Amino acid sequence: MGSILLCGADLLLRHEGRWSVQKRGFLGVRDQSIDYIGVDRPTATYDEEITLGGHLLMPGLYNMHTHTPMTLLRGLGSGLTLDRWLREAIFPVEDRLTPDDIRVGTELALLEMLASGVVSFNDMYYMPEITADAVLSAGMKANLNRPIVGFDKDEPYAKNQRVRESLQFFDTYHKAGNGAVLVDFAIHAEYTSFDELVKPYAADCLARGARMHIHLSETVKEHEECKIRHGTTPTRWFLDMGVLDSPVVAAHCVAVEPEDLDILQDRGVTCVHNPSSNMKLGSGFMPLATMLDRDMKVALGTDGAASNNNLNLFEEMHLAALIHKGHAGDPTIIEPGQLLDMATVRGAAAQGRTNAGELAVGQAADIVAIDLRKPHLVPNSDTLSLLVYSAQASDVAMTMVNGRVLYERGVYHTIDATRVLEEAAACALRLGLPVDGN
Amino acid sequence: MGSILLCGADLLLRHEGRWSVQKRGFLGVRDQSIDYIGVDRPTATYDEEITLGGHLLMPGLYNMHTHTPMTLLRGLGSGLTLDRWLREAIFPVEDRLTPDDIRVGTELALLEMLASGVVSFNDMYYMPEITADAVLSAGMKANLNRPIVGFDKDEPYAKNQRVRESLQFFDTYHKAGNGAVLVDFAIHAEYTSFDELVKPYAADCLARGARMHIHLSETVKEHEECKIRHGTTPTRWFLDMGVLDSPVVAAHCVAVEPEDLDILQDRGVTCVHNPSSNMKLGSGFMPLATMLDRDMKVALGTDGAASNNNLNLFEEMHLAALIHKGHAGDPTIIEPGQLLDMATVRGAAAQGRTNAGELAVGQAADIVAIDLRKPHLVPNSDTLSLLVYSAQASDVAMTMVNGRVLYERGVYHTIDATRVLEEAAACALRLGLPVDGN
Repeated sequence: MGSILLCGADLLLRHEGRWSVQKRGFLGVRDQSIDYIGVDRPTATYDEEITLGGHLLMPGLYNMHTHTPMTLLRGLGSGLTLDRWLREAIFPVEDRLTPDDIRVGTELALLEMLASGVVSFNDMYYMPEITADAVLSAGMKANLNRPIVGFDKDEPYAKNQRVRESLQFFDTYHKAGNGAVLVDFAIHAEYTSFDELVKPYAADCLARGARMHIHLSETVKEHEECKIRHGTTPTRWFLDMGVLDSPVVAAHCVAVEPEDLDILQDRGVTCVHNPSSNMKLGSGFMPLATMLDRDMKVALGTDGAASNNNLNLFEEMHLAALIHKGHAGDPTIIEPGQLLDMATVRGAAAQGRTNAGELAVGQAADIVAIDLRKPHLVPNSDTLSLLVYSAQASDVAMTMVNGRVLYERGVYHTIDATRVLEEAAACALRLGLPVDGN
Repeated sequence: MGSILLCGADLLLRHEGRWSVQKRGFLGVRDQSIDYIGVDRPTATYDEEITLGGHLLMPGLYNMHTHTPMTLLRGLGSGLTLDRWLREAIFPVEDRLTPDDIRVGTELALLEMLASGVVSFNDMYYMPEITADAVLSAGMKANLNRPIVGFDKDEPYAKNQRVRESLQFFDTYHKAGNGAVLVDFAIHAEYTSFDELVKPYAADCLARGARMHIHLSETVKEHEECKIRHGTTPTRWFLDMGVLDSPVVAAHCVAVEPEDLDILQDRGVTCVHNPSSNMKLGSGFMPLATMLDRDMKVALGTDGAASNNNLNLFEEMHLAALIHKGHAGDPTIIEPGQLLDMATVRGAAAQGRTNAGELAVGQAADIVAIDLRKPHLVPNSDTLSLLVYSAQASDVAMTMVNGRVLYERGVYHTIDATRVLEEAAACALRLGLPVDGN
């Protein structure tokens, strides 16, 4: 792996929960970790030096809820209601996806995420072995799972095919690539499960010391229907099932009620905000400002490219910074530093990754370089504000994971981008996806 | 000027108000206008050919409300209320701006807008002669004005310095550069004016056959205070003053009431949506869906970089596509084609520019090329959806105005970008702007 010294960039540091900028410093990387940060050139020697004047180094981003293979479904059914979007645009294509489609869709997603500064992500999709192999081959990090759903209450737990795949995937891939891939448990949602399935699965998760990934109260409709079905909110139902006894990452949390917030906070559940998807599907707004005020655990995600329609975490930071101010009529809520927390260190924590998410000696060298020499980033009177309100994913000049440069100004070092783009177009054709209605 | 044939790009066309895509076509440019569009290579010869396979050609964008020199104030006072933001962050710096700052701030804005596909904009700021010269030198288009404000009711109309500057600017610069620069009249806002100033100014505007640019009901506060002051809404007050007898571009329109909508529609006022700025300052949401349903005139703007914090019309299209769906809880409202209308042809119409805003034979050759060969734009199952939900300003590969390529993959042909970025940093230093609080 060797060692690299990054010279002359501004450094986005974090001390006791507050971000600050060290102007024109040095950052040393050795054995996959950061081994030096300072204003002065270190005395140790490094195999390689990269000069990065005019750039900002920041921790790599964590996309905490997505469905990577769905990049192939990008743009399908825009403008439909959630129900119609799923039934008419998404499910029919998903039924036709082959293992090769899953691989290509995943690789396409990795290209997009690396180019926009994402170093690790939380996925939820089927055939996760294919996604795991692609992640390992690309040199990225991810928390993956095989989500369970169940429709037949008479089927014994042990016979559920998805449960078996989920457990087997855990046993085969958990901590693969020296911990680059972590395997979680996952329950698609309350409305696609039932007690007899979820209770033993939650117990299995707890017994393995695993983490859990769920969809939670994405829409008012599913939230209210759960109350009719179970007499409780989805949050309370997951609590009753024992699901919240493990560390949980819960996507969406749009329709949660005050009592739900109490439960989620008490159990230390990480609520993942997906602003693009929730707006595009007309679901609404996660109560982010309230959650931050309560000091609850929160993180950021893109959701799948089919309901976004991209995997751009800079865009999600930007949206999360703006929409709650507009919705609440209050420009003082939600600070840039809180969004950077969500996109970095809070994501790492929710994935169960220690020594990750910040630029500090001893941390994993998961580093993004932002090119500040762009008209829209000048002048730079406030770097945090600049990153959240002005910067674009395309300002990412370099993405490094575990000390290895995976992306550099349009060039990918571990994925053949030309091949993937050609394969993706071929998949779309073979799947019979529309081409501008022509 | 010569002639150019653009070969092999997809073409975003518009027929009877509906957008469509012509795959792999030819577009000819001659004498500043489009002279050929077709699937087959034209028989006429062109001085130059540009091969653009894998690209989409679309009409250039219109940023219909901004304050270009305020790019120097980018990022100041993030998180403050509108009142405090103006008094503590903005006004003190604006008081110190020199003509040189105005020039540099404008040039910085032109760099950013050209790189993001903007061909023309509606500005509102002082020292507009400097902005006009910069626009003409850059080869862009703009509707400019010297906005009036008035605080001394005893001062006779003819003595108001800003009125005199406004009229003189009109007489000197209107239609400069063969119509590249158009000069409008402008009233900053109801709350910074009074009857004795606005009535004769509106009459002067009408007498000259000019257009008018105003801020209108940006916040509930200013809207309600107007009702206390005048007994009418700002819209009704502008109507009573005769302002709406001229063609008007009204920025924001957040707090408008149903009766205001009747007036604005009746008078054909163009309401300019500035979603970033209105959310960032906590002002709220212009009722865009209602306005579109009523078939009112609407367009898009960024507002100044100080309250945005950039000048990125792709971002505004994206926000306008998402936020109203989230706010209304309805994913079916506001279609991508309506947002493309607002960003192109409706902007051109509101600027009083004929034969502009679409790709069609006889139209001005104001053309943007989008590079579709990016991971986040693959696959392309729906080009309109792709442009609004997936595309980034950085996907702009070329911006052409009046048949002249002004920007091409990071290179500017009419502005020295390196000089401007250095000058902007020097201005920031001289103005004493903060540098990360360090």
